[in-house]
Amino acid sequence: MTEFMKGIVKDKPEAGATWREDLPIPEIKDNELLIRVKAAAICGTDMHIYPWTAWAQARLKLPMVFGHEFAGEVVAIGSTVRGFEVGDRVAGETHIPCNKCYQCQTGNQHNCNDMKIIGVHTEGCFAEYIAIPVDCAWRLDDSLSFEIGAMLEPMGVAVHGVLAGDIGGKSIAVYGCGPIGLMGVGVAAACGASKIFAIDVFDQKLEVAKQMGADITLNSRNDNVIEQILQATEGQGVDITVDFTGNGNAIKEGFAILRKGGRFTLVGLPNEPVALNLTDDIIYKEATVQGVTGRLMYKTWWQCNELLKSGKIDLSPVIGRKYALKDYDQAFSALKAGATGKMLLIPDKCN
Amino acid sequence: MTEFMKGIVKDKPEAGATWREDLPIPEIKDNELLIRVKAAAICGTDMHIYPWTAWAQARLKLPMVFGHEFAGEVVAIGSTVRGFEVGDRVAGETHIPCNKCYQCQTGNQHNCNDMKIIGVHTEGCFAEYIAIPVDCAWRLDDSLSFEIGAMLEPMGVAVHGVLAGDIGGKSIAVYGCGPIGLMGVGVAAACGASKIFAIDVFDQKLEVAKQMGADITLNSRNDNVIEQILQATEGQGVDITVDFTGNGNAIKEGFAILRKGGRFTLVGLPNEPVALNLTDDIIYKEATVQGVTGRLMYKTWWQCNELLKSGKIDLSPVIGRKYALKDYDQAFSALKAGATGKMLLIPDKCN
Amino acid sequence: MTEFMKGIVKDKPEAGATWREDLPIPEIKDNELLIRVKAAAICGTDMHIYPWTAWAQARLKLPMVFGHEFAGEVVAIGSTVRGFEVGDRVAGETHIPCNKCYQCQTGNQHNCNDMKIIGVHTEGCFAEYIAIPVDCAWRLDDSLSFEIGAMLEPMGVAVHGVLAGDIGGKSIAVYGCGPIGLMGVGVAAACGASKIFAIDVFDQKLEVAKQMGADITLNSRNDNVIEQILQATEGQGVDITVDFTGNGNAIKEGFAILRKGGRFTLVGLPNEPVALNLTDDIIYKEATVQGVTGRLMYKTWWQCNELLKSGKIDLSPVIGRKYALKDYDQAFSALKAGATGKMLLIPDKCN
Amino acid sequence: MTEFMKGIVKDKPEAGATWREDLPIPEIKDNELLIRVKAAAICGTDMHIYPWTAWAQARLKLPMVFGHEFAGEVVAIGSTVRGFEVGDRVAGETHIPCNKCYQCQTGNQHNCNDMKIIGVHTEGCFAEYIAIPVDCAWRLDDSLSFEIGAMLEPMGVAVHGVLAGDIGGKSIAVYGCGPIGLMGVGVAAACGASKIFAIDVFDQKLEVAKQMGADITLNSRNDNVIEQILQATEGQGVDITVDFTGNGNAIKEGFAILRKGGRFTLVGLPNEPVALNLTDDIIYKEATVQGVTGRLMYKTWWQCNELLKSGKIDLSPVIGRKYALKDYDQAFSALKAGATGKMLLIPDKCN
Repeated sequence: MTEFMKGIVKDKPEAGATWREDLPIPEIKDNELLIRVKAAAICGTDMHIYPWTAWAQARLKLPMVFGHEFAGEVVAIGSTVRGFEVGDRVAGETHIPCNKCYQCQTGNQHNCNDMKIIGVHTEGCFAEYIAIPVDCAWRLDDSLSFEIGAMLEPMGVAVHGVLAGDIGGKSIAVYGCGPIGLMGVGVAAACGASKIFAIDVFDQKLEVAKQMGADITLNSRNDNVIEQILQATEGQGVDITVDFTGNGNAIKEGFAILRKGGRFTLVGLPNEPVALNLTDDIIYKEATVQGVTGRLMYKTWWQCNELLKSGKIDLSPVIGRKYALKDYDQAFSALKAGATGKMLLIPDKCN
Repeated sequence: MTEFMKGIVKDKPEAGATWREDLPIPEIKDNELLIRVKAAAICGTDMHIYPWTAWAQARLKLPMVFGHEFAGEVVAIGSTVRGFEVGDRVAGETHIPCNKCYQCQTGNQHNCNDMKIIGVHTEGCFAEYIAIPVDCAWRLDDSLSFEIGAMLEPMGVAVHGVLAGDIGGKSIAVYGCGPIGLMGVGVAAACGASKIFAIDVFDQKLEVAKQMGADITLNSRNDNVIEQILQATEGQGVDITVDFTGNGNAIKEGFAILRKGGRFTLVGLPNEPVALNLTDDIIYKEATVQGVTGRLMYKTWWQCNELLKSGKIDLSPVIGRKYALKDYDQAFSALKAGATGKMLLIPDKCN
Repeated sequence: MTEFMKGIVKDKPEAGATWREDLPIPEIKDNELLIRVKAAAICGTDMHIYPWTAWAQARLKLPMVFGHEFAGEVVAIGSTVRGFEVGDRVAGETHIPCNKCYQCQTGNQHNCNDMKIIGVHTEGCFAEYIAIPVDCAWRLDDSLSFEIGAMLEPMGVAVHGVLAGDIGGKSIAVYGCGPIGLMGVGVAAACGASKIFAIDVFDQKLEVAKQMGADITLNSRNDNVIEQILQATEGQGVDITVDFTGNGNAIKEGFAILRKGGRFTLVGLPNEPVALNLTDDIIYKEATVQGVTGRLMYKTWWQCNELLKSGKIDLSPVIGRKYALKDYDQAFSALKAGATGKMLLIPDKCN
Repeated sequence: MTEFMKGIVKDKPEAGATWREDLPIPEIKDNELLIRVKAAAICGTDMHIYPWTAWAQARLKLPMVFGHEFAGEVVAIGSTVRGFEVGDRVAGETHIPCNKCYQCQTGNQHNCNDMKIIGVHTEGCFAEYIAIPVDCAWRLDDSLSFEIGAMLEPMGVAVHGVLAGDIGGKSIAVYGCGPIGLMGVGVAAACGASKIFAIDVFDQKLEVAKQMGADITLNSRNDNVIEQILQATEGQGVDITVDFTGNGNAIKEGFAILRKGGRFTLVGLPNEPVALNLTDDIIYKEATVQGVTGRLMYKTWWQCNELLKSGKIDLSPVIGRKYALKDYDQAFSALKAGATGKMLLIPDKCN
């Protein structure tokens, strides 16, 4: 282990980030692991940090390394850590729970009342090394690559959302075919949805949705989504809508095509209030609406593991492109331009 | 049985209704029962029909007898009816299901895709007799009076809403202390809610809420509802909010005082879209929002029956005042003025 | 319609049944349909009636036509029937509910307190025509053949059992590869089970289980089932066991390979008490054990319909052999000898 | 803090235990708390250890202090402990989870695959001091006494069992009126059970069951339990049976009086296999049987806390008698003789 490491630092309150080769390797506390990052991935959150949106300005204290989706190898462990050893392959959970509050004590550590987020409140993974609390380490199955490992955290969001209720033999509409939406389509297909509609505005993303198992893909810009879904469901609508867009119009449309007694799972985060027709869309329909954030620690991770090991789902179509970590500017540019799939950053490609 | 009956007819497209003593007694079809109405009650729906709001104008075909909450005695049965006899005491379910659609065939007859409503689409109960399909008849337990019988239908809405999820040992905020809200408070108390908040704008209604079991009553006009509920729940908010008002501001407030992971059950019908902060109030909170309408046919009726027979709930404080049927104008005036409790109309008092 | 029909009559209190060509075509009541049987199937119940076991002796009143799994065409309708017309294609539900008891009124018509069973308490379907109450008629989707239609009733048992809890991404052990067990394997595969174990004593049946989607098949006579399942589940056991055998040893084994917190669904009917180690197998394991009988009227039928139409499950491997109705003796002999798959009896092949 | 402490040691492989005043005060590890025991309670487990049954012989390594139900004050904390301070009032959870296994990571720490039990595998609480991992410490609400605090652990078993499903408005039969059964009756009453049957063989215990809220008490020795429960439920049976006895005959009876579609929760531990009529009692009944052990860490504790603070349940009738710790022989003798209620041992009474 050298004294310094390479990585990306958000150091100025403006768009962009800085490549550095002289960053100090993090020191670990008693309850932490030091991880050699083998693969990292860019999240929607990072698309706030890099261009420095209001959301990011309100949360980050500069300078800091950002990024929070990753997998790697344990290279050092704190004195009180049990259950991990140097050489273990791990993926990282983003949420750092307090373990003391009501939420943490009732099975909802992922929604802790005093939660910290890696790469937002603490130093992130867009570097050669990262230190994380042992609570945030997930042992990566031998059968899974580091690249798939870096996608487990967002896959968990898809699993937590799509499997928030029964799905076997049910019809589902998935709004939004970004990486999480695409993985959501795959989870729905793996878990026996009878008919899967995928909706987006980019044909290229809809193509990948088909590879992931969508039966019918609809482009909101060209297709009459409501009419086509109602027609394909004999006028009843779908059993389940899951929204990954956070777009108010998509959400309203998602209610319009929801069957009486249906489930609407909200995952994407709207930026502003959405005016809903509660009477017709929820009450008379006796719909159930669920908010879903993050993924259960670690029930969802076990589910992801089981699904991947069973071979019922293959994430490789969701991988957009792999970049050397130092080429991060290209990756962010591609995403800004609407590129399809999850962008991976590989530290070892930098050497 | 005489040839004519007394009753209230909505015969003109304007406010008010007409007392008649020469109405034809309804003829029953093969699958119907003829009921001698012993007690009827005024619903919020009737508060649209009597003053002739846009809602009523869009639905009713005049002239017709309205009203749909009632109990009475069977005086004649159709040729194909099984399970009821002349002399049986019954209460009436308002919803007439088609029994053929997906909803009817999957346990949701109360939310039938082709539903008719007694007193809106068919002749109602504000008269001495009413004919109803056998599907809408509920055998009234011997221990219950006709007056309580006339309140089972709205009580069912309260039970369906409050018991739409676990309640034992949980805290609950009930918005709206009209008759259904008051019964909702009583159901919550009977089923072991640990702390019950009742919110309304009339102190008199809040007084009855206390009698029904509310631990803390709050008047939205005078009290800082959010502050007081958060303080009384150690800053966490309540486990459950049930809204019986349909008021957009109440609904927004109900989300503000909902605990992470809480349940929000919507029963009251907003007249217009409500702009919700989905991100903070539902998604980050991982809240579950449920629409509830009517009551299950007949699971909810069995629950009402069991609760009343157990003595764990007493509806008598919810009875506002009993009027002779022909004094209906007084009852409607009282309600318009904000009177507390369920108003009963008694046909036999007219003789 | 001629005056007489062909069919199989159980007319003597002994093994076997009699072929008749002079049976009266059933007369229908007001609420009944007359069906021209196009395909019938042999159930385990019929394997009691044909050889005249104690079970059958205690229930049937001879003479009568037996059989209860079938599909056909409506040729006449009673006067009060709504929703069906002559020419409609239908499949038959075996359970005739009273529609008045607590079970019927709370979503469990299939488990009515006063249930009659077609082909046991009333004339059955092993004939050219059968009369059934409209409550027992299910409209057969245009895309499904009469032969598949005759298998919907037993498929419903498989669906009701396997989908009695979550299955997506979970491991399952299916005990018994008779027709219902085989369909259960297919349902588990269609609904996303991550790993499916099928257990039987006939290799031929296990072959079909593989076709239906089993990942690992085990022959109880040759394989160490417990050891192999524990090994394949990293020592944890399966998430779900479903027993279709009713065999006490299989049930005990099914608990031994069940994971802590797992679900055990009992479908097969043991003939005698089974001594269970409640402490280790249920209590310390915090297992959930569910009894399942029949199928929901008609939620399960809708699920079957959706699964078949989606193409996620194909029942054709489960079809054993098709016989002309009059060759029923051959079919019963084959079953007695342990033949694989569902045996179909086709009335039209007799002409 | 003196160097030595008083306490009860199980030091010989025979019945009884030894009072000692020269026991070393436990030293705490980094993740442990040292607790000054203010109240302890005797569990059924201790009734195996004291008389030295086969169960105890198979598990304990002598000598050791036993006992595991307690509350007290924190007097020292380990170096890595967060969230507790000297002076805090706490109650103890008996189960020490590994925090690494599948069960621990999916919300079932209380059923850890590698669980240790305080007072069985580690030094217990029948002494002036006990050292426990911070994972096993529950902050005692200011409104609750240490004596009630010592009863939270067994109360949790009652809550976990009774609230393992809906209970509001439902009928329940509670088998066994030991301390946990009595608390179970109280929880059922607090959470709105419509009718509570309590069954035992000691009239004195049934008296306390009435104080806790039982509507009907039945003595198995004198009453025809099945007949009386069926009569009181109009022949339907109860919605829920919870068994706290582990007695095979009680369990069989509990199925006989269970309604179709009912829930049977097993808590008491049978010593030997129980022969169940699965066909009639579970399958045809579509019953759900649940094994329940311990209590959720810490969802159940929060439920206990909420129920006690709400005043809906009062545990004081369940307190049998309070003894000075050194008078433990009297307490064990009383229990052996069938004494009613939870026996408390108070260390401070020894000084």
